[in-house]
Amino acid sequence: MPLSPDQQAEIDTQRATPSQTLRAVAPGMEAHLYTAHEVLDHGFVRVVDYMGDDAAICQAARVSYGRGTKSVSNDEGLIRYLMRHWHSTPFEMCEVKLHVKLPVFVARQWIRHRTANVNEYSGRYSILDREFYIPAPEQLAAQSVVNNQGRGDALQGEEAARVLEILKADSNRAYDHYEQMIGTDGQDGLARELARMNLPANIYTQWYWKVDLHNLFHFLRLRADSHAQYEIRVYADAICNIVKDWVPAAYGAFEDYRLGGAILSGPALSVLRRMLKGERVEQEDSGMSKREWREFMEMVDN
Amino acid sequence: MPLSPDQQAEIDTQRATPSQTLRAVAPGMEAHLYTAHEVLDHGFVRVVDYMGDDAAICQAARVSYGRGTKSVSNDEGLIRYLMRHWHSTPFEMCEVKLHVKLPVFVARQWIRHRTANVNEYSGRYSILDREFYIPAPEQLAAQSVVNNQGRGDALQGEEAARVLEILKADSNRAYDHYEQMIGTDGQDGLARELARMNLPANIYTQWYWKVDLHNLFHFLRLRADSHAQYEIRVYADAICNIVKDWVPAAYGAFEDYRLGGAILSGPALSVLRRMLKGERVEQEDSGMSKREWREFMEMVDN
Amino acid sequence: MPLSPDQQAEIDTQRATPSQTLRAVAPGMEAHLYTAHEVLDHGFVRVVDYMGDDAAICQAARVSYGRGTKSVSNDEGLIRYLMRHWHSTPFEMCEVKLHVKLPVFVARQWIRHRTANVNEYSGRYSILDREFYIPAPEQLAAQSVVNNQGRGDALQGEEAARVLEILKADSNRAYDHYEQMIGTDGQDGLARELARMNLPANIYTQWYWKVDLHNLFHFLRLRADSHAQYEIRVYADAICNIVKDWVPAAYGAFEDYRLGGAILSGPALSVLRRMLKGERVEQEDSGMSKREWREFMEMVDN
Amino acid sequence: MPLSPDQQAEIDTQRATPSQTLRAVAPGMEAHLYTAHEVLDHGFVRVVDYMGDDAAICQAARVSYGRGTKSVSNDEGLIRYLMRHWHSTPFEMCEVKLHVKLPVFVARQWIRHRTANVNEYSGRYSILDREFYIPAPEQLAAQSVVNNQGRGDALQGEEAARVLEILKADSNRAYDHYEQMIGTDGQDGLARELARMNLPANIYTQWYWKVDLHNLFHFLRLRADSHAQYEIRVYADAICNIVKDWVPAAYGAFEDYRLGGAILSGPALSVLRRMLKGERVEQEDSGMSKREWREFMEMVDN
Repeated sequence: MPLSPDQQAEIDTQRATPSQTLRAVAPGMEAHLYTAHEVLDHGFVRVVDYMGDDAAICQAARVSYGRGTKSVSNDEGLIRYLMRHWHSTPFEMCEVKLHVKLPVFVARQWIRHRTANVNEYSGRYSILDREFYIPAPEQLAAQSVVNNQGRGDALQGEEAARVLEILKADSNRAYDHYEQMIGTDGQDGLARELARMNLPANIYTQWYWKVDLHNLFHFLRLRADSHAQYEIRVYADAICNIVKDWVPAAYGAFEDYRLGGAILSGPALSVLRRMLKGERVEQEDSGMSKREWREFMEMVDN
Repeated sequence: MPLSPDQQAEIDTQRATPSQTLRAVAPGMEAHLYTAHEVLDHGFVRVVDYMGDDAAICQAARVSYGRGTKSVSNDEGLIRYLMRHWHSTPFEMCEVKLHVKLPVFVARQWIRHRTANVNEYSGRYSILDREFYIPAPEQLAAQSVVNNQGRGDALQGEEAARVLEILKADSNRAYDHYEQMIGTDGQDGLARELARMNLPANIYTQWYWKVDLHNLFHFLRLRADSHAQYEIRVYADAICNIVKDWVPAAYGAFEDYRLGGAILSGPALSVLRRMLKGERVEQEDSGMSKREWREFMEMVDN
Repeated sequence: MPLSPDQQAEIDTQRATPSQTLRAVAPGMEAHLYTAHEVLDHGFVRVVDYMGDDAAICQAARVSYGRGTKSVSNDEGLIRYLMRHWHSTPFEMCEVKLHVKLPVFVARQWIRHRTANVNEYSGRYSILDREFYIPAPEQLAAQSVVNNQGRGDALQGEEAARVLEILKADSNRAYDHYEQMIGTDGQDGLARELARMNLPANIYTQWYWKVDLHNLFHFLRLRADSHAQYEIRVYADAICNIVKDWVPAAYGAFEDYRLGGAILSGPALSVLRRMLKGERVEQEDSGMSKREWREFMEMVDN
Repeated sequence: MPLSPDQQAEIDTQRATPSQTLRAVAPGMEAHLYTAHEVLDHGFVRVVDYMGDDAAICQAARVSYGRGTKSVSNDEGLIRYLMRHWHSTPFEMCEVKLHVKLPVFVARQWIRHRTANVNEYSGRYSILDREFYIPAPEQLAAQSVVNNQGRGDALQGEEAARVLEILKADSNRAYDHYEQMIGTDGQDGLARELARMNLPANIYTQWYWKVDLHNLFHFLRLRADSHAQYEIRVYADAICNIVKDWVPAAYGAFEDYRLGGAILSGPALSVLRRMLKGERVEQEDSGMSKREWREFMEMVDN
């Protein structure tokens, strides 16, 4: 169970006491507050707070573009226009604060996105819990033979069993030794900041992560992508589901123009125009390398 | 009057409709929502939205430092500890969005603070209003003769009158010409993005400005300082009054450790220790330059 | 003449003294050092310093992707791969420092790009020079009637003459009054920080601007775009010419994948696939709004 | 030995070929290029590239403050003035790129500093090396009993031996299993991105880290501090030694005003003034809490 009894009690108290506010309220998001959406075997994503809604995006855009935006008939049209033309600052006017519990190796990928605020559980101050990510059997994928950073098919039978056995045994042994080193019963054990170095990267950590909507979309575009590692993609997917309820119009535009969209190079655009005029184009006369051509054909031929 | 009738109407509508929320609510801040605090002759600062409160700072710190923070007896003590030891990330967990109307030359200073989100009124899209900052007579200060960037005493009599006359006449003439160049009655005038170049730096602009509390404190420390230019300091002061009501404990710590505090150099600290032991120290044997010594003596001798 | 005699003398001294270094040197960039490329009537762009070259991008990528990048046959191929797949961090490993002289209204657009370091000439400390941007007659464009932020045809004859007359006369009068207010002959005039508010937005300022290559590309994509205001676009164009000589492979990839490329929405991609299979698609059954359809048709039908 | 033969060969080639440049050259820094300074048992810090020197800081300041800076007699005085008065932008005009090899638990602390560019070795693409940080016996400190995040005395005798044995055995076993899981001889093993989760936080990683001087000073102030964890402090110390040779004047100012300095709260400043006038002040009438008083007394009584 991902939430500790203490955390659950704190959440229950908060949930029980709605207050009045004059701020913008997103009803779809209120429903997510204080609900821990489970991810992986011990992780979760939980909305702690948020600022703004679809209307707040338009409000900010209308300050910038003044009367010029009045010609756009409605909020959804305006939001789609902003997304299409990379006017990113109005999206920065919405903010969300999440509580996330996640394995350390996922946290290490996540933290590369620097335009966010983070408060992480500290292994210097506190003792980490015995919680490790052990993949579900269908996620025990082999190294891809075509892609250096990808996964192939799932391991089967004995090979899979052996891997699971290793991960479980090593995690538990590492944690046993961690406990031994820091000591018990108040005796002077090894400093926590040192003992934690024995713990493997599948141990869970947690943090508060606060980010604006523009930077969140950037994160989601990279991490909800099919090339992202499965273990971070499931967090991105969970967040997508939350954002959809928070700012439905902005999320719809994001889905159409970023997630589901594609980028054409100049040479690819030229080829496309020739093709649409009925010309038959081959890689040799496309101005693209073989690799670019293959990626291009996969995109248009899907 | 700083707010346009359209803006006032929009605000009145928003103020009339409180909603229920499960988020953290700061009662002191709710009272500021939809109230334009007047600054200078046509400017204002107005809270559009906020996220978090004093408790949210502690909540984030407790995630980081875990059980370690339980030893601190209360929220205020914890917040003061965080401020004193430069643990800035918990303060980043609060966010505020302001609507500010301000002269362009103030906006140019303000925007140097890069860690914020901004949507500014665009003179490319829209026609600027005829509103200019004309200093109050007591603010017509002479150039300081001791400080390259400072002000001396206020100009008097004819000299002051002449300056006011110039500022008013030039502003109005520039605006008349701006209007002439962009044309009226739908005829094809000069593009707005060009015509605006004729307008002086005391014309008012406005923007939405969103920033987290840590970066806001950094802004306030520099801009509410006595060395800051008066015209930006009054905005900083107005914001200080708002923040005091929003996060009273954090603001109190900020006032004690940043605004009212001082920084000692290593050599100054050595001198201080010698002085406290009763030694009489002179600049010559202080290890400080004359300028540093003067600044040090002003600080301790105040 | 854009450079002051002092600046020119300083530059001449620096140019005369090449030194030995063990760092990466980009020969194409060395040729730009200490050369002020003129932009507009009094502006310039000048390279002050730089760090890295095409090889430095690959060097950083090879640290990240390890042996995996060995399969890419050469630096150019690797750089194009990185650009195509939005692996932006290796581009951040190059840095450039520019000295730019530009009108204030251009500086105000430019500074919105926050991920850069800036030191601007301060009108609080120092007296600004009498230098104003006066557009060339062919740049005196009318407001576009189809685009709120665009330009139409150039004004002609008397109308153009009248605009030029206004801009010149108002600039000079504003500067005369600025001088009068701050005083001469050492008498106590109005503080510089106040007097500057009388100066219009076409006065020139200057700054040192330092940015990494990834963020520079982002700036160039937006500001070298045909929708950017002419007066900032000419600066972006001048910088493009510099970057092309500095990191030729990275610039080539940027040109193909960003500047000359296009972004397809999910619905647009679907339509495209149907078209390539020979289907005739109309806006009504495209899943796109009229505006999106028009923009899409302009892109593929060019 | 921290550098691989490949890395050493690459470095030797680069070192052998000095080039001519017109850029600012810092002689003290050239001596550091291509030298790996060893840190901990397998780590290092190595300067890959740099931009600017002490003179470049002054050059940028002089653009900002114009003629106003001429009154400061020399570069060192100007730099000390800038540091004392928190004029941080001129320091941002210098940049350094380091190659660092460090244990993962150190990397996790380091990466919290977000205002830097990073390219890290990727365990998704490549196989990690069998290199683990094993503390020297004198660093096997016990948990502090007075400070939640601190260290007490070193463990002794059998207890120390037992800890070392655990760390070594667990590291090696984890790496053996990592190798088994990813497979050898080209057979389809577990994907690298999964297998790496078994590796503990004392395994070494490496990255290119690029940062400007202002942000580097901020990093060094926090990480070269006596409260920082020993394992990151030794990296900060190594970087301090490099920076001292790169920008001696700036480093001197940093040492005096940041590293060796102290911050006084408003109440502490009041108490100090009373003390200097000969008054005897106790905690009870100091306006400080007991904790603040203790910290204050430690500072002035040192």
